Amino acid sequence: MSLDETTEKPHEALSRHLSDGMAAVDALIRERMVSESAPRIADLTAHLIGAGGKRLRPLMTLAAADLCGYEGPYAVHLAATVEFIHTATLLHDDVVDESEQRRGRPTANLLWDNKSSILVGDYLFARSFQLMVDTGRLRVLAILANASATISEGEVLQLTAAKDLRTGEDTYLKIVRGKTAALFSAATQVGGVIADAPEAHEQALFDYGDALGIAFQIVDDLLDYGGNSDATGKNIGDDFREQKLTLPVIKAVAAADEAERAFWKRTIEDGDQQDGDLDEALRLLAKHGAMEATRQDALAWADKAKEALSVLPDRPVRQMLMDLADYVVERVR
Amino acid sequence: MSLDETTEKPHEALSRHLSDGMAAVDALIRERMVSESAPRIADLTAHLIGAGGKRLRPLMTLAAADLCGYEGPYAVHLAATVEFIHTATLLHDDVVDESEQRRGRPTANLLWDNKSSILVGDYLFARSFQLMVDTGRLRVLAILANASATISEGEVLQLTAAKDLRTGEDTYLKIVRGKTAALFSAATQVGGVIADAPEAHEQALFDYGDALGIAFQIVDDLLDYGGNSDATGKNIGDDFREQKLTLPVIKAVAAADEAERAFWKRTIEDGDQQDGDLDEALRLLAKHGAMEATRQDALAWADKAKEALSVLPDRPVRQMLMDLADYVVERVR
Repeated sequence: MSLDETTEKPHEALSRHLSDGMAAVDALIRERMVSESAPRIADLTAHLIGAGGKRLRPLMTLAAADLCGYEGPYAVHLAATVEFIHTATLLHDDVVDESEQRRGRPTANLLWDNKSSILVGDYLFARSFQLMVDTGRLRVLAILANASATISEGEVLQLTAAKDLRTGEDTYLKIVRGKTAALFSAATQVGGVIADAPEAHEQALFDYGDALGIAFQIVDDLLDYGGNSDATGKNIGDDFREQKLTLPVIKAVAAADEAERAFWKRTIEDGDQQDGDLDEALRLLAKHGAMEATRQDALAWADKAKEALSVLPDRPVRQMLMDLADYVVERVR
Repeated sequence: MSLDETTEKPHEALSRHLSDGMAAVDALIRERMVSESAPRIADLTAHLIGAGGKRLRPLMTLAAADLCGYEGPYAVHLAATVEFIHTATLLHDDVVDESEQRRGRPTANLLWDNKSSILVGDYLFARSFQLMVDTGRLRVLAILANASATISEGEVLQLTAAKDLRTGEDTYLKIVRGKTAALFSAATQVGGVIADAPEAHEQALFDYGDALGIAFQIVDDLLDYGGNSDATGKNIGDDFREQKLTLPVIKAVAAADEAERAFWKRTIEDGDQQDGDLDEALRLLAKHGAMEATRQDALAWADKAKEALSVLPDRPVRQMLMDLADYVVERVR
């Protein structure tokens, strides 16, 4: 599969196919994000929610519900819920990471202050649970409360494990599930739940979101050592400079000899970096085939995502979701 | 009513009366606050939850359920839920306020870092919703999601209104409901909900918690201009130095002449404070009877709390809750 600028991308095709639902999601988000008593809340959320994200997660929920034949009103509530949880975690992440840019614009913590970012994140989180209550489905609340706990656990784990050379692929996977995959898998699963899909379909939707999220994060980590800043909005080596132990490095550390371990310890654990260290890191990643092995992992997760969909009905949305899995790994294929 | 050190305080009497339930709440909190994948979470929560708070909010929930004749297992879940939400807001508040002490011990943000405080707060919030799901009651989720939204709105409102001399008593009340009363009123209300109490009883429990929380906060604000640091853990004038527009000052500003308004603008809005300014503030509060008027408000809210209970069954817990309302205003009576 090959995509150039003139081809419609899979998430664009999904957006078009589900445009009525996405318009309703937008309207609901705008309605629920305001607070009559605290006007600053709308300033902050409008800044973030208007920042031109792809709305990938709400799209996943609508697509999953559509795939399971749902025609009721509540997929829209769940899609807005998922976007609220996502926005709340972005607000808190930007404080935690001391970020200055998000989607090419200054972050809310830079424009307002960390205090507002923390409190408005809390507000959106509470609002997301109000939206779920509207659906009248306890199972939806259970799934998204679990996902929210997994997200925080993953982020806390990242704080403690990110610079620790003992961190292995198992821990990396837990962190990635928390940071990225847990909300994707919950987003697709609740689409099945609201449609009263059979358990096997619900599980397949969970597996799709989980594998898609993991593939997405691995590609992101890989491009950090080999993409270009135009494509990703990141510079090569950002993760290295920020001493983040991502999958390519974990694989290279596992294969390292004594001198190489000392290099990783100095640069990643101790953060003592000098000119030329990034080049040396890239050389070691190549030497041990860590880039290629990481690439193969990403492709395998994308395949897993597609396979999961095979038990679901062959509706147009299914092919679009499969294409999306291909698209996620397109830049490293 | 008069209390000295040897008399059992109302919250102690409640704790003793509900000791089996409170032991179960403790056990459930300890079980649910840990995270297998992120051990740091338990360090932080143990620090806070073991910090010797009165557990007033979970006590309110158990007391309300008991008052409505509930004998099932889920009041304990709701009591733990309320304590988790309270702990999550404390963790985030300490980051927002840049606090260094809480209950006489260093705050978590000082011992670990702001990042952990934000993320562990999010984790506890997610855990609280998991506990609510266990009860199988959507109405409980609705009430506590609404309370959580009100808490964040109140805190955001405080950020924008706290130093603004135009802030009136209406806004003050909104802030106090968010900061303090919303979780008290939700804590007592859900105790009634789980007991399937009639609507009038549920409303009475809400009104009790609301009025108690407001009385509690007004007393706190009053003592800041007239208590002593032994009793409150605060020094006289802390709110003044932190430029917080609390109820006594709002009343004094409303009665101020031009020169006095200039004084409040300089000290509270602009934060330009000099030696002797606190004495001048205390003189103006006395001159306009602002201290006495604030005291009367606190007593009126305490009375309102007690009156609300009159429709509820005359069980032993009811008298203890009435005594608690008296106790809250005891220091300013």
